[in-house]
Amino acid sequence: MITLTTDFGLRSPYVGEMKIAMLRLNRKAVIVDVSHSVERHSVLEGSFVMESAVKYSPEGTVHVGVIDPGVGTERRAIVVEGNQFLVLPDNGLATLPLRHIGAKRAWEIDPERVKLFTGREVSPTFHGRDVFGPVGVLLDSGIEPGELGREIPLDSLIKLDVEPVRRGNLWDLRVIYVDDFGNVVLNLEDFGEPRAVELIDLNLRVPYLRTYGMVKTGELLALRGSHGYLEIAVNRGSASERLGLKIGDRVRVRLIR
Amino acid sequence: MITLTTDFGLRSPYVGEMKIAMLRLNRKAVIVDVSHSVERHSVLEGSFVMESAVKYSPEGTVHVGVIDPGVGTERRAIVVEGNQFLVLPDNGLATLPLRHIGAKRAWEIDPERVKLFTGREVSPTFHGRDVFGPVGVLLDSGIEPGELGREIPLDSLIKLDVEPVRRGNLWDLRVIYVDDFGNVVLNLEDFGEPRAVELIDLNLRVPYLRTYGMVKTGELLALRGSHGYLEIAVNRGSASERLGLKIGDRVRVRLIR
Amino acid sequence: MITLTTDFGLRSPYVGEMKIAMLRLNRKAVIVDVSHSVERHSVLEGSFVMESAVKYSPEGTVHVGVIDPGVGTERRAIVVEGNQFLVLPDNGLATLPLRHIGAKRAWEIDPERVKLFTGREVSPTFHGRDVFGPVGVLLDSGIEPGELGREIPLDSLIKLDVEPVRRGNLWDLRVIYVDDFGNVVLNLEDFGEPRAVELIDLNLRVPYLRTYGMVKTGELLALRGSHGYLEIAVNRGSASERLGLKIGDRVRVRLIR
Repeated sequence: MITLTTDFGLRSPYVGEMKIAMLRLNRKAVIVDVSHSVERHSVLEGSFVMESAVKYSPEGTVHVGVIDPGVGTERRAIVVEGNQFLVLPDNGLATLPLRHIGAKRAWEIDPERVKLFTGREVSPTFHGRDVFGPVGVLLDSGIEPGELGREIPLDSLIKLDVEPVRRGNLWDLRVIYVDDFGNVVLNLEDFGEPRAVELIDLNLRVPYLRTYGMVKTGELLALRGSHGYLEIAVNRGSASERLGLKIGDRVRVRLIR
Repeated sequence: MITLTTDFGLRSPYVGEMKIAMLRLNRKAVIVDVSHSVERHSVLEGSFVMESAVKYSPEGTVHVGVIDPGVGTERRAIVVEGNQFLVLPDNGLATLPLRHIGAKRAWEIDPERVKLFTGREVSPTFHGRDVFGPVGVLLDSGIEPGELGREIPLDSLIKLDVEPVRRGNLWDLRVIYVDDFGNVVLNLEDFGEPRAVELIDLNLRVPYLRTYGMVKTGELLALRGSHGYLEIAVNRGSASERLGLKIGDRVRVRLIR
Repeated sequence: MITLTTDFGLRSPYVGEMKIAMLRLNRKAVIVDVSHSVERHSVLEGSFVMESAVKYSPEGTVHVGVIDPGVGTERRAIVVEGNQFLVLPDNGLATLPLRHIGAKRAWEIDPERVKLFTGREVSPTFHGRDVFGPVGVLLDSGIEPGELGREIPLDSLIKLDVEPVRRGNLWDLRVIYVDDFGNVVLNLEDFGEPRAVELIDLNLRVPYLRTYGMVKTGELLALRGSHGYLEIAVNRGSASERLGLKIGDRVRVRLIR
């Protein structure tokens, strides 16, 4: 199984071209769209979206991610191998998925080697179709990463700054995602079962509950979102709009026990 | 074949996660997206969209619908079996699809039994991924509904108020759908071949014709839409905008013979 | 492999119904979505989107296109056979894809013959589901086009006006596409490697480079886009918004060598 996460949007033919390039190599490939509507060039959003797919995927799944503002420049195209595979530009996109795949090795993809399999030129602006997609399907078909490039040190990969920071009683967190419902996802996973959550800078305390329907329509709550992260939400409303929070924002939080 | 109808949107990873959870159980499952852009929490819109899929599906198709504002509360998750299957929350979503499947029996899904098949925890906020999607693929693979929950009376299912009401010469109808083109779909199927349709409250009479191109660009008409319902449309324009009609609105209509 | 390009949008159930109608005929059909978000009734945009798919598809691929403002009127539904197949309304949509398939023969589809295969009525407003989709899957399954209609002369097909016109030093071009990033695609493919491109009417000269990242953020450039056409772009911005150019617009250009 191969998953796709991009910022190509669904109006342009780009996603279709990428899938055609993949199915050329293996007509029986099973391809799952995770999202093609990541905000353009938002590596953090893309990293969260890919992580969501990784958490629920079986061993051996190949995750292809193309949020790639540096396409055609010197940024590396890479493969990371663990119990699942990542295929993506080396620009931080791997940061969150890397937490879950038990990464063992990494390679820098050589587009010239990919051409030996596809028989197609590599456009300088569309590596999704000409490099990442085909590499995804080749790995899924059992090709060794070593046939597609040279090994590089795992610790050379570029990482985003998304580790939660504890300062005594407080947490310095970041908004790592806002979903279509306006739910605000923060980068904190190990936080037990607080009674309430205080948003310091907004001077707000919201109850911590199991699910949205446990407060009235329009009211704020905190909960453990379906991805395991601390989430701020409004029952049948948008916490993002209500609180003015968007992806990448910093948020100071106190957990009330 | 399994169809999916949700209000998850296509930006978030939710649809992808749901499909991954399904393909884990059967890598060869054939999954068709009907829509993931049903208006958030609009059970009526979702019911119409699912009905559209049901009408054109072969026997044995499994239709999974997740418009589920009550997720995590006491609402029931159900399976309905007829010549096709429905898998959805018991909140009225089944109303329109139920007209076409010759329903024979219904079950309340027990998430604990689903876990025996998936081996995954059930998130209180994401039953699409953890309950409905997996149940869909299990039924498609031949698992008996009785293995997934306890039988419940068919007449205990919650229904939406969408029966057309006749008052002498008039029909009290509801807008059950507005498509992307702005065509307004009304809940009337058996209406023969009128010459024109009068929209009482708008004080408008529009001709009844076979297809959009039979009036000039920008003009109103009534027709039998591709789903068999009475439809009000504007050739190359939006009847919804022109008339200020949206899903759920009540409309009084006189058919001119 | 069958590709789909439509202006149905992804909110309505239309795309889902079309796929269900196709999978009824062959549950193992491989269907690739190219785009369902072509601007409503924009035959030129649809033609470009289909061309993009054709360029990257293997021999024998069947491309189904439904941008069909004349559905239900006298416009012909056609099949074109070359090393790939086109299935679409005869309204100009075939223009750009036709350049790449080595077209040999064409047929006018007879909906009555399609019904013999599908066993379903043909709605006057939804030929995507009832005619084009099923024909696509029938051709993909090896049915001869002659079984679906009568042959017509290849040169009888309707064509769009998209040939670039040279006037001495200048080119009269048209915008044939604007992608989600706002990149402006012009109908010129054979133009070598100019140093810069002058947009006469906008009184602008932009450098011609290999890829977006070779100018600063927010700056204009020209390049060979991933589809091989001359493209005007803004690094990490929208050339369409900056220059006020949209699909169908005429643009006079001078190539600086």
